[in-house]
Amino acid sequence: MKVIFCPEQLRHSPLQIMSSGALVDSPENPGRAETLLQAAINAGLKHEVPANYGTTPLAAVHTGRYLKFLENIHTRWKRIPSASKDVLPNVHPDIRDVVYPDSAVGQVGYHVFDGAAPITADTWNSACWSAYSAVHSANEVLHGARACYALARPPGHHATRDMAGGFCYLNNSAIAAQVLREQHDRIAILDVDLHHGNGTQNVFYERSDVLTVSLHADPVRFYPFFWGAANEQGNGAGAGFNLNLPLERGTADDDYLVALDQALARISEYDPGAIVVALGLDAYVNDPFAGLALTTEGFARVAERIAALHLPTVLVQEGGYPTEHLGDNLVAFLQAFISDSAP
Amino acid sequence: MKVIFCPEQLRHSPLQIMSSGALVDSPENPGRAETLLQAAINAGLKHEVPANYGTTPLAAVHTGRYLKFLENIHTRWKRIPSASKDVLPNVHPDIRDVVYPDSAVGQVGYHVFDGAAPITADTWNSACWSAYSAVHSANEVLHGARACYALARPPGHHATRDMAGGFCYLNNSAIAAQVLREQHDRIAILDVDLHHGNGTQNVFYERSDVLTVSLHADPVRFYPFFWGAANEQGNGAGAGFNLNLPLERGTADDDYLVALDQALARISEYDPGAIVVALGLDAYVNDPFAGLALTTEGFARVAERIAALHLPTVLVQEGGYPTEHLGDNLVAFLQAFISDSAP
Repeated sequence: MKVIFCPEQLRHSPLQIMSSGALVDSPENPGRAETLLQAAINAGLKHEVPANYGTTPLAAVHTGRYLKFLENIHTRWKRIPSASKDVLPNVHPDIRDVVYPDSAVGQVGYHVFDGAAPITADTWNSACWSAYSAVHSANEVLHGARACYALARPPGHHATRDMAGGFCYLNNSAIAAQVLREQHDRIAILDVDLHHGNGTQNVFYERSDVLTVSLHADPVRFYPFFWGAANEQGNGAGAGFNLNLPLERGTADDDYLVALDQALARISEYDPGAIVVALGLDAYVNDPFAGLALTTEGFARVAERIAALHLPTVLVQEGGYPTEHLGDNLVAFLQAFISDSAP
Repeated sequence: MKVIFCPEQLRHSPLQIMSSGALVDSPENPGRAETLLQAAINAGLKHEVPANYGTTPLAAVHTGRYLKFLENIHTRWKRIPSASKDVLPNVHPDIRDVVYPDSAVGQVGYHVFDGAAPITADTWNSACWSAYSAVHSANEVLHGARACYALARPPGHHATRDMAGGFCYLNNSAIAAQVLREQHDRIAILDVDLHHGNGTQNVFYERSDVLTVSLHADPVRFYPFFWGAANEQGNGAGAGFNLNLPLERGTADDDYLVALDQALARISEYDPGAIVVALGLDAYVNDPFAGLALTTEGFARVAERIAALHLPTVLVQEGGYPTEHLGDNLVAFLQAFISDSAP
């Protein structure tokens, strides 16, 4: 298996995020990617740098207005007297169908739903290369690879069609799924990140050609709070094609695997041509976000079961924050996946 | 005329607000109210402390869930490790019809739409007394006073049925209008604050019994950014009963009065039994928000024209921030209003 990653993805290095009313250091930092790259190599993966795929694969998932905003907002923000160094929002619409302001501050509130997606001078560039790692990985799979690992950092699954949030700017998993659609009628996205993949759900909520399934800490008491309930099942043509499996805080390996089996059964029933795994590692018991309680061995067991689907698989990195064992958890997942993918 | 104000309204003293991504000192401070009270007394008004009207007049305008949130959130917030001293939001829903989280952080994002409405240990108490000043003033008018001035601080016109924002928690102007409805079939609210009265618009958007009219700096480049466009005219039974008159930045007295005449013509046509003036003084040329360019004499001219409606009038203080002439502007408005109200 290859690990796809471009060093340009390291340039995005936000200073501070808003958390419980206070500005604190961002746990989503370039060091995460360095740790994960080394881990992937240790697991036997071959590192490859993605090609530049331009805006087409991004525009297949995000609105043109949002992409233009992401590309230009930092330059515009710098002109505001006494503005912060990184772009952070401070005023938000309550619905989407409102005045779209010309003002930079207004547009930031429109397009960034929380204080955990600071936009730096390098964010657009790094987010594009993160998305290209996902596109490249999807192309590897379209060209016959059993699986490919996109070291997508910054992550993507909280980014909606037109909003950034939760460290995410471009929805790498959704972008990969859209690339896979070139060859397959039905794609499944399985999101095992600690947090609900609200952005991915948003992108495909009214579509039946991409099944979205997310296991996550119950949002009623956990980020992202407003999305991820079990009764969110899709809308219109997408009705029945979104499955949320909210889990109690502190859910550990065995109970997690029961929910995972439910997710995998739904995916098998859907019979997709390929699968995208939104691979958060923050369900780890010692992750700083302290939501679920998977062990390192638990990640291996998750990987074994996903591999047992025997589907072309794009693994797209999502969350997972610096701990002593972040790299070990990735190694455990990848090695188990590879060994169970052997013919 | 009386000025209604309770010293409890001074207790709310927020530390910092989020503005252009940075935490800065709040310009909405207790000193504003002290300046305005002294100015009202200088203009010849008699100070009276409002009665405690309980929750009934608040619940006529706001949801029960929101009132419970406002009352309790600071106590709950204090239990969050490493939370800020004042409550500030950091994650927001994109629509209203989402999971209502149990989590304090989630509820803050649901009920506070910007970083300029910090909730302190004293906010609920002060906001209630600010609303009681408005209720008391409305009762004065119902009992025969030609006019009454509610020194409503913290202000209210950005607060929607279930959201705080822009220094506002309880919508004092809407609450006053609702009290006036006890005796009159039709009430008009005229909002001359620099900023669009999005909260007041929200409260009455589907109702025809309260006409809402707002003059304000065009939101396409000015706070509150997402609401206040001319094409927002009400909905359902309220269609045609909301009038927004967005003004170019820097609009000065003469052009302002042209727009005011348009507002007053609409109000006369509506033929209300009484009027609430949402009396922001931040359209002043030297106000720190630097949006419009009314002079002190301009405020007198605004007051003359409102007085010429010859309607029972509740003046409810909204914005207007510390400058050398904040008090002078209130004196100019009140004296002109009183002299033009004489028989």
